[in-house]
Amino acid sequence: MTEEPKGGGVSRRGFLTRVGATGGAGAMFATMGALGLAPSAEAATRVPFQPPRRSDFTLRGRGAARIAVLGAGVAGLAAAYELGKAGYDVTILEAQDRVGGRNRTLRGGDRLAEMGGDTQRIGFGKGVYMNAGPARIAQWMTTMDYCRELGVPLEVFTNSNADAYIYNQSAGMTAPVRWRTAKADVYGYISELLAKATDQGALDQRLTGTDKERLLSFLSGFGAIGGRASGFAYTGTDGRRGYTVDPGAAENAGTVLGPVPSLSDVLASGVGRSFSFEFGYSQAMLMFQPVGGMDAIPRALAKAVGAGRIRTGAQVTKITNLAGGVEIEYEREGRTRTLAADYCIATLPPHLLAKIPHNLGASVQSALGTPVPASTGKIGLEYKSRWWEDEERIYGGITNTDLDISTIWYPSHDYHAQRGLVVGYYNFGANSDAYARLTHAERLRRALDAGAKIHGDRYRQGIASSASIAWSRQQHIQGGWISWPSRGAEYRLLNQPQGNVYFSGDWLSYEIAWQHGSFESARKVVTELHQRVLKG
Amino acid sequence: MTEEPKGGGVSRRGFLTRVGATGGAGAMFATMGALGLAPSAEAATRVPFQPPRRSDFTLRGRGAARIAVLGAGVAGLAAAYELGKAGYDVTILEAQDRVGGRNRTLRGGDRLAEMGGDTQRIGFGKGVYMNAGPARIAQWMTTMDYCRELGVPLEVFTNSNADAYIYNQSAGMTAPVRWRTAKADVYGYISELLAKATDQGALDQRLTGTDKERLLSFLSGFGAIGGRASGFAYTGTDGRRGYTVDPGAAENAGTVLGPVPSLSDVLASGVGRSFSFEFGYSQAMLMFQPVGGMDAIPRALAKAVGAGRIRTGAQVTKITNLAGGVEIEYEREGRTRTLAADYCIATLPPHLLAKIPHNLGASVQSALGTPVPASTGKIGLEYKSRWWEDEERIYGGITNTDLDISTIWYPSHDYHAQRGLVVGYYNFGANSDAYARLTHAERLRRALDAGAKIHGDRYRQGIASSASIAWSRQQHIQGGWISWPSRGAEYRLLNQPQGNVYFSGDWLSYEIAWQHGSFESARKVVTELHQRVLKG
Repeated sequence: MTEEPKGGGVSRRGFLTRVGATGGAGAMFATMGALGLAPSAEAATRVPFQPPRRSDFTLRGRGAARIAVLGAGVAGLAAAYELGKAGYDVTILEAQDRVGGRNRTLRGGDRLAEMGGDTQRIGFGKGVYMNAGPARIAQWMTTMDYCRELGVPLEVFTNSNADAYIYNQSAGMTAPVRWRTAKADVYGYISELLAKATDQGALDQRLTGTDKERLLSFLSGFGAIGGRASGFAYTGTDGRRGYTVDPGAAENAGTVLGPVPSLSDVLASGVGRSFSFEFGYSQAMLMFQPVGGMDAIPRALAKAVGAGRIRTGAQVTKITNLAGGVEIEYEREGRTRTLAADYCIATLPPHLLAKIPHNLGASVQSALGTPVPASTGKIGLEYKSRWWEDEERIYGGITNTDLDISTIWYPSHDYHAQRGLVVGYYNFGANSDAYARLTHAERLRRALDAGAKIHGDRYRQGIASSASIAWSRQQHIQGGWISWPSRGAEYRLLNQPQGNVYFSGDWLSYEIAWQHGSFESARKVVTELHQRVLKG
Repeated sequence: MTEEPKGGGVSRRGFLTRVGATGGAGAMFATMGALGLAPSAEAATRVPFQPPRRSDFTLRGRGAARIAVLGAGVAGLAAAYELGKAGYDVTILEAQDRVGGRNRTLRGGDRLAEMGGDTQRIGFGKGVYMNAGPARIAQWMTTMDYCRELGVPLEVFTNSNADAYIYNQSAGMTAPVRWRTAKADVYGYISELLAKATDQGALDQRLTGTDKERLLSFLSGFGAIGGRASGFAYTGTDGRRGYTVDPGAAENAGTVLGPVPSLSDVLASGVGRSFSFEFGYSQAMLMFQPVGGMDAIPRALAKAVGAGRIRTGAQVTKITNLAGGVEIEYEREGRTRTLAADYCIATLPPHLLAKIPHNLGASVQSALGTPVPASTGKIGLEYKSRWWEDEERIYGGITNTDLDISTIWYPSHDYHAQRGLVVGYYNFGANSDAYARLTHAERLRRALDAGAKIHGDRYRQGIASSASIAWSRQQHIQGGWISWPSRGAEYRLLNQPQGNVYFSGDWLSYEIAWQHGSFESARKVVTELHQRVLKG
């Protein structure tokens, strides 16, 4: 249990937690009121961070150090940005010809090379883009704070939409069902079942008479079910299933979508499996995205860091920890060069760091080889019209399937524009590997075949351009993210400085594959490094 | 059951409905596949509408007629707009000095007068506004089509947010709970209960063995509950409750929000009552709003109609149906004037139409007096900082309470801007009446007292300006909307032309209080009137 930083002895939150544990919510609420904490909303949940300041040195009579940052992904850029606030002499070495790392937004005119594959020339029209890497931000994430600080404007990312579909082919579904319909049916039937069981006394050991009354009242509204006389039957006559003819003028009360599938059919369809996704702390709406593309974040960071401090096309070939600093050897423009610094922050993916010669010892080498790279990929389908809006009334959101495409994403911006880009797959593991092995043309064909099961033949028509990315085949990255078999000794080791070398990245956080993890890891390393420099 | 318009005899949907009714979803899916309808998404659910065209007259040798439209709200503007497409000679009479009716966006510099009350001078800063009337649009609504056609840009309206609060004071809650936490607890406990009952055989009459297996599997993920050995216990250890310290770098796995209230306390809190709101066909996310204010819609309509066709400040004083047309008497600039036309479309609220002398007969008069005006109001609180975002990580959404404010709305736009506007109440009925009776200063004080129960004292601090509207006290409107005691003979009567006078508005639709209702009603009347003119 992490306690609040302020206050010695028993922290306020610690005290409340213990009260709550014995007294239940009622006691918790009452105690909070008595303490003067409530009534009021809960405090922010951020991990506190104090950026290094120039005045830290002025007051202590020490100077800022030279820092070599390896990698201009989000962690590297964030570390350089924060250190720069205190006047550190930072140099970033980046192997690619661009900043951002996995935070990449594909636009018309870009070239996308693949290891052992063709280079795609992206043909998207003006204003059309695909966030090839990270594409969503939860409200609680530190990423939001950087957007505010850097002036990156945000808009809602449509992670959930009642009008998008669920389609489980393996369960025997031959047509998709809208999320709203699936929820109405599942919630309706589970309400019916629980109301029956409650009313029949099956849960009397767990429920008091008052509990039962309140539960039945809740279920009545939650499931839109009938009363006791009907056996609490779910009949799906409520408009929340959707309509085949929308309610309108005069005598048009609307025609509720029917027929309602049976309880057994609803359970067999497995549609309810999709629901808990949106309860997740990192996935629950509302979610956000930068206006115009996710790469607004690394662009803003790089601008703040200063172009002069970022050497792109610089591939690190050797990391040497010295008694009084570090020496980084790298290749650039066909020549081997050396960068000397006091400290190094290495933010490359661990499986790539493991390939670079260093003198940090065998346990570091073993630890770097421990995380397992995970495969992921996306295809962007630019259509000449936004038929999903015009014909199917899907303004953003995600269709969930058990097909190898996993999901279909509808765009969260430029509603009603002429063109738009649908993400035709965003998949993982074996599905992603399968697509990664294909040429782009083959991926396109396969994605369209799958998507046509949801949207019919129209899905194949009117495509203006397309592009696909297989992150396992991206040079200098080679994976979507990593997973730790367990967060054991290796994880702990790399979260400690090795001589003058620090490691940082989402892979050293509890929010892997999220920019939040990169930012938090960068902040941690910056804090530790700065403390060390100040102590001398 | 409304059948699809095309095809005689048994419609395809009618056939499918019957198959589905007897065979369950499986049969339905299979049949759809066999018919070649599936696989594909369902068709759009719009009521078809063919706007009048100039060529309709050319081909039939008839000329467009003169139409007097009473009221420049959404219904009146839409009717004029559609008739204008065919060259009808339309004149709109509007009593107010602005168009839009209840669609009104308040901005800095506006003046807001109240019947029998003070006039507020709105002091909102640049870019800050409040949609005083309609504020949200569902994806399926015809309003979306008009936004597309008129080029009104849209953005997501944040109708639901996991980070907003629920607060039921009357249930004994002394602190608010976030939607995400309330959902985790309610879904967790109902999953535990239903799993227990299912596993104990209490529902064996309703569930087969396979059903039970599938249901238990669903509940496990839906409620994040334990397995059979634990009694399927909900313990709330899943991060979906939220965190007191967010997951971050290195060893910070995050601290899950606790303690978990007991089942009885969760049921007693009544938080689950709020959930079904977002299942509604008209309220389910995703929802939308025009960028910059809802009045972009009437502004765009008025521009398309042409300013020369709209007479503002024109209060109708008499409606006379003639053998060959209509005569409308109205006051403007202190003088009584007359507008002669072939037809009239009256879109004023029925309770105001009932006060205007006419010769349409006693049953029309009685029908106009039947609908009951409903009270509603809002207060806008402009703050000097967006503390709900910065301190509480609430980026949009709605807090739901059982207080007299009913709800608190956080803004759906300009995230991270310097200032922002919170809607401090949007309430109905007796609560709305109570606020309507107060001066603005009194409303403000009362709304702040209520909101402070959610957000603490900070809610009273840093207010830059505020404005409140009581729709029952708005001249020429006098109500938020109306309700029909039943949609009986009076409703049917007014949905038929009375001589050369047509009635139109959301009050003559099944979507009262939504712009969709106004648009659909306008389309219906335009279609009928145009058919009549063409037939001569």
